[in-house]
Amino acid sequence: MLASAAPAAPSTKNPATGTDRVFNFSAGPGCLPEDVLRQVQQDVWNIAGSGIGILEHSHRGKVVDKIFEECEADIRKLANIPANYRILYLTGGASAQNHMIPMNFMPKGSTGDYIVTGHWSQKTFDQAAKMGPNFGTAHLAATTKDQNHSYIPADDQIKYSASPAFVHYCSNNTLYGTEWFRIPAVPAGVPLICDASSHFYSRPIDISKFAMVYAGAQKNMGPAGVTLCIIRDDLIEKGAKDIPELLQYRTFVPEFSRPNTPPVFAVYVMGLVAKWIARSGGLAAMQKHNEAKAKLVYDVIDGSKFYKGHARPEARSLMNLTFRTPNEKLDDLFVSEAKKAGMDGLKGHRATGGMRASIYNAFPKAGCEALAAFMREFEKKNG
Amino acid sequence: MLASAAPAAPSTKNPATGTDRVFNFSAGPGCLPEDVLRQVQQDVWNIAGSGIGILEHSHRGKVVDKIFEECEADIRKLANIPANYRILYLTGGASAQNHMIPMNFMPKGSTGDYIVTGHWSQKTFDQAAKMGPNFGTAHLAATTKDQNHSYIPADDQIKYSASPAFVHYCSNNTLYGTEWFRIPAVPAGVPLICDASSHFYSRPIDISKFAMVYAGAQKNMGPAGVTLCIIRDDLIEKGAKDIPELLQYRTFVPEFSRPNTPPVFAVYVMGLVAKWIARSGGLAAMQKHNEAKAKLVYDVIDGSKFYKGHARPEARSLMNLTFRTPNEKLDDLFVSEAKKAGMDGLKGHRATGGMRASIYNAFPKAGCEALAAFMREFEKKNG
Repeated sequence: MLASAAPAAPSTKNPATGTDRVFNFSAGPGCLPEDVLRQVQQDVWNIAGSGIGILEHSHRGKVVDKIFEECEADIRKLANIPANYRILYLTGGASAQNHMIPMNFMPKGSTGDYIVTGHWSQKTFDQAAKMGPNFGTAHLAATTKDQNHSYIPADDQIKYSASPAFVHYCSNNTLYGTEWFRIPAVPAGVPLICDASSHFYSRPIDISKFAMVYAGAQKNMGPAGVTLCIIRDDLIEKGAKDIPELLQYRTFVPEFSRPNTPPVFAVYVMGLVAKWIARSGGLAAMQKHNEAKAKLVYDVIDGSKFYKGHARPEARSLMNLTFRTPNEKLDDLFVSEAKKAGMDGLKGHRATGGMRASIYNAFPKAGCEALAAFMREFEKKNG
Repeated sequence: MLASAAPAAPSTKNPATGTDRVFNFSAGPGCLPEDVLRQVQQDVWNIAGSGIGILEHSHRGKVVDKIFEECEADIRKLANIPANYRILYLTGGASAQNHMIPMNFMPKGSTGDYIVTGHWSQKTFDQAAKMGPNFGTAHLAATTKDQNHSYIPADDQIKYSASPAFVHYCSNNTLYGTEWFRIPAVPAGVPLICDASSHFYSRPIDISKFAMVYAGAQKNMGPAGVTLCIIRDDLIEKGAKDIPELLQYRTFVPEFSRPNTPPVFAVYVMGLVAKWIARSGGLAAMQKHNEAKAKLVYDVIDGSKFYKGHARPEARSLMNLTFRTPNEKLDDLFVSEAKKAGMDGLKGHRATGGMRASIYNAFPKAGCEALAAFMREFEKKNG
């Protein structure tokens, strides 16, 4: 270990954490495991005794080869990903998938089916709907807009088209704080594509039910700058060949996603996070950890007439907890008082108002205990 | 300053540098200023006293706002970029521009002109040439392939089409080690687009001569994961509107390139590097520094019958120095002996063979002195 990885001397002690770091409830980019940050501090200067920092290594050299190989192996192992799936490291955020998916899988004459349960799946559908005359048609199979996206539709509320080329949905809705706890039923043989950005690897996942799962890394898996894409071989093969090379999934299959210079550092951090999940007990342990954390906060909401949750109880996300006080003035006071108490990033999105506590994998249980205690105290003072 | 930013205790002392870091001649990602790495070590844990590390901050929060604003201001100031140019932070590497440019600026019926002087401009042309029936035609205005890209074409060797929508060229050829020391003459009013990836901000640049200059950050400006794009307002406006939103340049204009989650960390490091260039004396100082470094090595080549440069002397790059010994066996020996002596990344690309020394802005002069001395010594032993 190099001295550069020594613990930071707290500059200002935070009242909640007792260190120089705060409890970070940001919706994403979200907090990362502190172990991982310590490793990054070291490796930025000199990684693996190479005399070169991680930011400065050739993306085709041995050090990066090993990082990319290990990252893939670790991600595969965590969810037991079958051998006929590729793991790709893409860029442009999950948002770039909004055009890549229809460009690849929605050729002229075909129909892609979209389930809309929030802000991001709406944007995904909107892009597909305006691809133009050279592509197929986007079909809105369901939307939960009627109740400001506070619920997840039942299977009989989803109306697929006659012969969908694929079905797309977003399995956790960061803004509204709802989460799918089942996989939607799709017609036999239809590829299911899932945007799992804001809860990827927060609990076990059966990849074999999907043709493609993708996630911007910046919630549960790493920093902004890389989109993890797990995609089945037969779907890759179905992709259009008359679109630009870097917009075809197949281009990223050989050589660990390196047809161009990949976002090496983001993949490296994602690899460290995957190792952290593994040594923390894997996805089953993450689920237990996340359920326990969310329960601390939801219990306060359920036991109170002061706080009101946005999402219906059966659809409440384990990652993004949305709630409000009786009025906006108190919401604002809540956010500013919480910040003073060492809890940052609790302001809700304007779409729901109120508060949002994002508690991704790396967010510590102590932070949820602190928030729950703060909520009770705040209610007492202002209720 | 936090203790986490303390200097690393050398693990193994490198014979050339006397520290635990080597002289890194990598063609890119390339070496970064050590000052910058020290700052990153600190900020990864806790940036600007926020109690949150740079990887964990919301891309819409105040800390990131400030980083993006300062990065833009610093980049503008360094080259005195006129007010009618935007600065965009894109992803997908410079390679993603290979399809974005024709999708935006080469509509059906038009012609885009391409000057090919190496591997990357060839790939750029190849992608444009196969855009398909919904787009225009790519015209090869010049190529230096006839002499394995060892030279830069004169203006009278470039044959433009009748009415080009734009002219594209690559101003430094990383693989072959050639560099444009003039800006090619183009017909009046034709937008000139330049891929400056591997020598961006290595010397002063007159942006007003270009409609667009772009550069993957990972050579001179930062880590892999962001493409800096400087583009004139009228060119942005000319861009197609019937292509996916995230493939239109105009989408990135509002809110500092944040229609989606941007690669925050890569922009942050680019901002630190811009500040480092400014306090090192700006682009004029970079030019002097780079000319002095390159001269050390080129002087050895010019004074020797043992070493042979790939590029013609008048076209020799200040960034990527390509040369070889009398035979491949000696080339291999050179690379392995240099590595033992603390100089990494000297193996040339298979396109040229031999050696390549990439000496970007952050590469220290001492490294070129060490290489020049090593070359003389190696010639003595093996000549």
